[in-house]
Amino acid sequence: MRVDAVADSADVGIRYRPFLLGPIFKAQGWDTSPFNIYESKGRYMWRDLERICADLAIPFRRPDPFPQNSLLAARVAMAGTGEGWHDAFCRAVFRVQFGEGRRIDDASVIEDILNELGAPARDILELAGSDHVKLKLRAETEQASARGIFGAPSFVTPDGELFWGHDRLDAAIAWAKRRAG
Amino acid sequence: MRVDAVADSADVGIRYRPFLLGPIFKAQGWDTSPFNIYESKGRYMWRDLERICADLAIPFRRPDPFPQNSLLAARVAMAGTGEGWHDAFCRAVFRVQFGEGRRIDDASVIEDILNELGAPARDILELAGSDHVKLKLRAETEQASARGIFGAPSFVTPDGELFWGHDRLDAAIAWAKRRAG
Repeated sequence: MRVDAVADSADVGIRYRPFLLGPIFKAQGWDTSPFNIYESKGRYMWRDLERICADLAIPFRRPDPFPQNSLLAARVAMAGTGEGWHDAFCRAVFRVQFGEGRRIDDASVIEDILNELGAPARDILELAGSDHVKLKLRAETEQASARGIFGAPSFVTPDGELFWGHDRLDAAIAWAKRRAG
Repeated sequence: MRVDAVADSADVGIRYRPFLLGPIFKAQGWDTSPFNIYESKGRYMWRDLERICADLAIPFRRPDPFPQNSLLAARVAMAGTGEGWHDAFCRAVFRVQFGEGRRIDDASVIEDILNELGAPARDILELAGSDHVKLKLRAETEQASARGIFGAPSFVTPDGELFWGHDRLDAAIAWAKRRAG
């Protein structure tokens, strides 16, 4: 919800790159979100998120169930690479899941988002199911893993520096700006 | 290294409470630091720490080996509860391990710290080995766990709000100040 404002004010460009967390978690031995695996830490993480969103006046509703399968959302984002609605779609997926309590594993929710953005939902959903898009998403996920990404959101600067988490967004943008200097 | 300056400037008091991470990690199924268990995440955490210390001009040297057994250091801190050297000792344990590359599992390093602080090292080390101190440290560790603590540093405000990590220090102090207001 903050990335564009922070990037714009620093005059730094952003390229959204969807990937799947599932395979990346699996490589760490996790079959679900670490929020669920580690009880105390998970309870804390939700509370932390709640406090941060309250401070920033960003709507927050704890998703139920959590995590939700993001495969369709990620494929749709991949299908929309380069399209005018792509970035807004990526943001909307997070907003509806974490701010509005809607389920991103429900195809009709994804279709609603596309319709609200004025994108040709039916054509996009068909493209999202194609082998081309599936393979592209798999390759992007492998590249994320190869860059050392282990969670989301992650930010990678043009010189390959990795920053993880909302609380490192400002540091990532500052780094990118300094190096672009 | 920052806690006293941040707390002082907000006029918030700090009480250092040593506990052992080992039993808390064990309860999460870890037999060493998660820095070591999760390779990508561990590599990132060290880099993150390096960047943060560089930004703040705080000396940093990655400890080797890591983690180091903190039992003696924690017992000495426990033995010093209420003493004038206690807080400075707690800070020094972190400074020597993470800033100077010295080993806190070496009794002579702990003795050096006490001597530098003008504390009666021999008496303190004897007290640190007593059953009274051992049991107190165990009780404090159990209380940390009961408060939902799963890592260090953690900050607990008087109204029981938990904050975890250097990057939540400012939020914790702000919370304590607001509630005290």
